[in-house]
Amino acid sequence: MTRYKVILEYDGTDLIGWQENRQGPSVQSLVKDAISSFCGARPDVVGAGRTDSGVHAVAMTAHFDLESEHAPQTVMRALNFYLTGKPVSVLSCEVVSDDFNARFDCTARHYKYVILNRSAPPVLGRKYTYWVPRPLDVDAMQRAANRLLGNHDFTSFRASECQAKSPVKTLDMIKITKSGDEIIFEFSARSFLHHMVRNIVGTLVEIGLGKPLDIDAILAAKNRSAAGPTAPASGLFFIRADY
Amino acid sequence: MTRYKVILEYDGTDLIGWQENRQGPSVQSLVKDAISSFCGARPDVVGAGRTDSGVHAVAMTAHFDLESEHAPQTVMRALNFYLTGKPVSVLSCEVVSDDFNARFDCTARHYKYVILNRSAPPVLGRKYTYWVPRPLDVDAMQRAANRLLGNHDFTSFRASECQAKSPVKTLDMIKITKSGDEIIFEFSARSFLHHMVRNIVGTLVEIGLGKPLDIDAILAAKNRSAAGPTAPASGLFFIRADY
Repeated sequence: MTRYKVILEYDGTDLIGWQENRQGPSVQSLVKDAISSFCGARPDVVGAGRTDSGVHAVAMTAHFDLESEHAPQTVMRALNFYLTGKPVSVLSCEVVSDDFNARFDCTARHYKYVILNRSAPPVLGRKYTYWVPRPLDVDAMQRAANRLLGNHDFTSFRASECQAKSPVKTLDMIKITKSGDEIIFEFSARSFLHHMVRNIVGTLVEIGLGKPLDIDAILAAKNRSAAGPTAPASGLFFIRADY
Repeated sequence: MTRYKVILEYDGTDLIGWQENRQGPSVQSLVKDAISSFCGARPDVVGAGRTDSGVHAVAMTAHFDLESEHAPQTVMRALNFYLTGKPVSVLSCEVVSDDFNARFDCTARHYKYVILNRSAPPVLGRKYTYWVPRPLDVDAMQRAANRLLGNHDFTSFRASECQAKSPVKTLDMIKITKSGDEIIFEFSARSFLHHMVRNIVGTLVEIGLGKPLDIDAILAAKNRSAAGPTAPASGLFFIRADY
């Protein structure tokens, strides 16, 4: 048995998300199908994050086991060959020790959220952004974001379907920068609740548009309805997992 | 009669190019359709560049005339409304003097060509790049590109269908930079021949892969077959027109 660690890029637009189920193609199902075409086996593929439908990844780490050992370059090329035309690409592959776990060994997860903030609708890269036509106050959003840093009960920013045991998480970074018409939100934490990044962005956008929301009161409410709406999946990218 | 100058963004992937004809949707036909839906008239729309099928634009300048005068913001919003779901967006609109001509008054045109240079195929933004899996020598490409600067007979880099009166053009800039896995080519000139940027990139890629092509000999040959292949349209962006 050999364990392989892979880094995946994917375009989530036409995927149902990370997790395999019968609703449609997922990152997991496409990678499993490619492994199966390569060597006949269909092992479980464990990812650092289980992204939602429509969410993209610049570099998602995952692992799986194969009975026989192949050169990592061979595995990478074979999977990319069988993934031709699919929205998943294997950026790198290496053999790791049997106890490496892409999900449980991950020490930090990094996300990026991209907003296009201009009056004209996007056409170039419209699948990779959330269009907000009215001007956003970046400073007001950053000030509000800073109040979310550290250890909090994030129940107000948690999807009702979230299966995490505890709503308490430690948010290490939210950095908001403007580059031309784009506003980029960078998030880092050991782990996130379901929809947490999108619910935070949706709330910060309301604040950026001038709505007088109080982050401390929203956190204290421990109620999803106290926060803003869930921002669309198209603007969200899983950037990197640290080990 | 009022003349309007607009700046357009477009995703060329599913367009037959700038020029209207019966083969399919073009930038010109979509903008004309939107104008017609707005005010009933279908005036000619003149662009700074007549880009090919599949070529994108970050900011293409164009002009057209309307019988009655409307606030430019109204024209912009109306066109974007009628362009909803189409791959063209109006970034700005202003009223200009009757003698402004988006094509003939243009003093410089700027293009960008994007190559993804890594072994794994692209999935994020694959419509906006040309994938070259083998490593390219950027310095060798820049040295060759420098020999194309200035005034030359570019017959060797000209499409057979090119309708320009003269093959002599002055190339003001070719700048090649590497950013992560991306290699960006920037081109500036008053005007370009048909396929000139893509034929230059196709030739530079051959040089970047180690083929011993001599730019001076290619120019002197005045023969399209002396140069490299035409690089794909997906990597090409019209960036800006100067006036």
